[in-house]
Amino acid sequence: MVVSIPTCLPTEALTLIYSCQQMKDGHIKKFSIFSLALTVTFIHCSCLARNKDEKAFSDRAEEIASYANVAQDIIDLAVRGKAQNRSYERLADFTDTIGNRVSGSKNLDLAIKYMYNALRENGLENVHLEPVKIPHWVRGEESAMMLHPQNHTLAILGLGSSVATPKGGIEAEVLVVESFEELKKRAKEASGKFVTFNQPFVSYGKTVQYREFGASEAAKVGAVATLIRSVTPFSINSPHTGWQDYQEGVKKIPTACITVEDAVMMARMAKRGQKIVVRLTMNAQTFPDVDSFNTVAEIIGSEHPEQVVLLSGHLDSWDVGQGAMDDGGGALISWEALSLLKDLGLRPRRTLRTVFWSAEEQGGVGAQQYFQLHKVNISNFNLVMESDMGTFTPLGLQFTGSTQARAIMAEVMKLLKPINTTNLEEHAEGTDIEMWMDAGVPGASLHVADSKYFWFHHTNGDTMSVQNPVEMNLCSALWAVVAYVVADLEEMLPRLDSMVL
Amino acid sequence: MVVSIPTCLPTEALTLIYSCQQMKDGHIKKFSIFSLALTVTFIHCSCLARNKDEKAFSDRAEEIASYANVAQDIIDLAVRGKAQNRSYERLADFTDTIGNRVSGSKNLDLAIKYMYNALRENGLENVHLEPVKIPHWVRGEESAMMLHPQNHTLAILGLGSSVATPKGGIEAEVLVVESFEELKKRAKEASGKFVTFNQPFVSYGKTVQYREFGASEAAKVGAVATLIRSVTPFSINSPHTGWQDYQEGVKKIPTACITVEDAVMMARMAKRGQKIVVRLTMNAQTFPDVDSFNTVAEIIGSEHPEQVVLLSGHLDSWDVGQGAMDDGGGALISWEALSLLKDLGLRPRRTLRTVFWSAEEQGGVGAQQYFQLHKVNISNFNLVMESDMGTFTPLGLQFTGSTQARAIMAEVMKLLKPINTTNLEEHAEGTDIEMWMDAGVPGASLHVADSKYFWFHHTNGDTMSVQNPVEMNLCSALWAVVAYVVADLEEMLPRLDSMVL
Repeated sequence: MVVSIPTCLPTEALTLIYSCQQMKDGHIKKFSIFSLALTVTFIHCSCLARNKDEKAFSDRAEEIASYANVAQDIIDLAVRGKAQNRSYERLADFTDTIGNRVSGSKNLDLAIKYMYNALRENGLENVHLEPVKIPHWVRGEESAMMLHPQNHTLAILGLGSSVATPKGGIEAEVLVVESFEELKKRAKEASGKFVTFNQPFVSYGKTVQYREFGASEAAKVGAVATLIRSVTPFSINSPHTGWQDYQEGVKKIPTACITVEDAVMMARMAKRGQKIVVRLTMNAQTFPDVDSFNTVAEIIGSEHPEQVVLLSGHLDSWDVGQGAMDDGGGALISWEALSLLKDLGLRPRRTLRTVFWSAEEQGGVGAQQYFQLHKVNISNFNLVMESDMGTFTPLGLQFTGSTQARAIMAEVMKLLKPINTTNLEEHAEGTDIEMWMDAGVPGASLHVADSKYFWFHHTNGDTMSVQNPVEMNLCSALWAVVAYVVADLEEMLPRLDSMVL
Repeated sequence: MVVSIPTCLPTEALTLIYSCQQMKDGHIKKFSIFSLALTVTFIHCSCLARNKDEKAFSDRAEEIASYANVAQDIIDLAVRGKAQNRSYERLADFTDTIGNRVSGSKNLDLAIKYMYNALRENGLENVHLEPVKIPHWVRGEESAMMLHPQNHTLAILGLGSSVATPKGGIEAEVLVVESFEELKKRAKEASGKFVTFNQPFVSYGKTVQYREFGASEAAKVGAVATLIRSVTPFSINSPHTGWQDYQEGVKKIPTACITVEDAVMMARMAKRGQKIVVRLTMNAQTFPDVDSFNTVAEIIGSEHPEQVVLLSGHLDSWDVGQGAMDDGGGALISWEALSLLKDLGLRPRRTLRTVFWSAEEQGGVGAQQYFQLHKVNISNFNLVMESDMGTFTPLGLQFTGSTQARAIMAEVMKLLKPINTTNLEEHAEGTDIEMWMDAGVPGASLHVADSKYFWFHHTNGDTMSVQNPVEMNLCSALWAVVAYVVADLEEMLPRLDSMVL
């Protein structure tokens, strides 16, 4: 029995050949010629389709490879041309002029104005502001003092959305726990006390739950306030702020981060059986939501202006440091990418749209409203990109999308060989783009050498001193090449997982 | 011509053989038999003496090697026996109870009392306090604010011995310079201004001159105050304090350290031509010197109680952090060394004396007075040791002394093979022991993996969190083995450089 073997050899074909072999050996007694014919037909058609897909992909790979010279031009301009260090210099000017810019602050308004003007002066297109409503929480004066067993000033940062203490502060004993489980076991000891969460740092994703939910969990067992160990693997007595969420129906108690050093010291004291007494004073206030804006600039597409590749970072920061790393750098390379293309006179088929989000730190507030407003046009969103994990030495691109789209992106990344950042990795991340990805739009985020990112995250140490012009050049080059090529390809990135390679 | 060649082959002998060879070849025409005879006699005598020295050294090397088992016992007890982690636990209890302890403070008094009691409770011998007079400078409230081109709170730490600002502070423009040379060139611009020294960090030894002498150099050209970039290679917006010296006859102006981040930001602003205005308020006060003590404990020598191996660290710290690293760790391993030997019932021939110095940070004040008091007995000081560069993973021992003494110490260090810290390095360091070394007494200091030492030095980040119990075990073991063996050898370490090996 001879079976014509297609040029492609998928699993089905190999199974069939094996089955036929089994038949020859007489191991299978009953065999339906009809079944066999059907199977052969199926395999044949399937292979024809696959060959067609492969041809299509090969054409696209060729199309992408043809951008090698353009990619080299972009890289040259960013890394050693006249645009060298520009994103760093712009970021320095921006942060040295405005400083940090928390949601609801006058500084954030100034930052948006600064950027609106700068993007216009840069000659970008369709520069405009899109109104959003954002939270307005103000830290106010805050302090904490250990009174027993030692007089010691605690470096603290109240957490975003925390309520204030009563006037004059709260003076209470401290219960130190390492986890929510320990708190549950020792629930009876918590009443009327501060709860200090001295959770070890495992990863930001896993450990941040104590900052986010610690206050309500402690309030449930009668605590009067919480002191959360800062979410970082390294500290020079540096407190880290961040958002926290009160649970519906649970009493709101004041909550602040203390330093790793002080949390660990309290744990040592508690282990020795020493009574710890702290006075905490916080004057935080939450005001009604205020008006703000997402800031937008474009290079309008030549053939499909309605179709969009979106590049982004968030313009707001916490109210400490300069917000240079989180996320000034991400915003600046998203601007720089457009500047580089403009300098080279490159206008892609589709529109390149840079967006600086407002109030990301409060839970992607500006980006959520953008999504609600624009999701009606979701089919026109080709790729959504965000950089929000630092702009240190780039290691590659994290990507979420269909297998087909991933294969195309892998080809695009090959264009970055001149700067040795061709890696295409799993799972794009970004609070401001995740709703698009959840809705099926391909998403990309920048992966950088971020091992020290959380050392500075949400602290007074998030300044221009952690930024490096050469690293920002490389990030800008990667960002621009990816955005431009994807926006200029003949076809949009496919969303459905129908092509097997 | 036959020349009897001694068993040792020093340079002189080789020269002689070569000379004879030259004579045989007839290259040297004139040759005095008398000269030759004299030379041979000299070499012969010199070799005999050398052979005797070598024999003596070989005996001492054997003597030292015989301590291998004792060294192993000390190491076992410190690293994996019941004393494991004891120095760390003691340091934690000490610093968590007392906190930091600057010269002249109530905390330093408490620290001395704590240690006096602890050393007695530990059963050490001749525990006593030796009176010294020390400086009394109090920081008081201090703050600095940038008013232009941005409103920005500057994290500062006034420098030890700085005068206060007038009430209400000083508001002035800032001149940023990178070096004393630049200040001289721009002297005319400094009048009436703050001078910010934004010197790059080269090494602590080289860079600290700006902290020490910056104020007087700036005052000479009419500056009203100085803001010195903190002396560190790494920062999370962490200001570093430290001592500074006013020059005789130069106006005393207030001086404080700012963070690396803020100094670099000011330099960027100045480069852009932006006018920088700062308001500085300092309430520092210098009071008359106060009474304090060096704290002493011993294991009294069995044969030569008057002869001493001195182990030390300083008990005072700056008025920030916990002073755990600088120099709680050094003091604690100097205590631990004696505890280990006591636990093992080891009493050396000579006395082991642990001293906790007072007011090292003000220029080795307590140690200077100790030297003045005890130098009359200098011939009894066998070895002076100090640990003041952290108690991280030990890498070896730094040593200052004669070539003979160095050879002996190299043999002693071989006993530390079980913990792989046999390195004997050049140049012992230690503010508190340098006068002894200058006077010819052999000195030793602990060399540890100190690459991050200056990240925490004189900051709020100098806490128990930088200490590690396993590292402290190793430091204690090294410290105890060296001190014990040197104190127990038949002979004191030689001071004169008369033996060539």
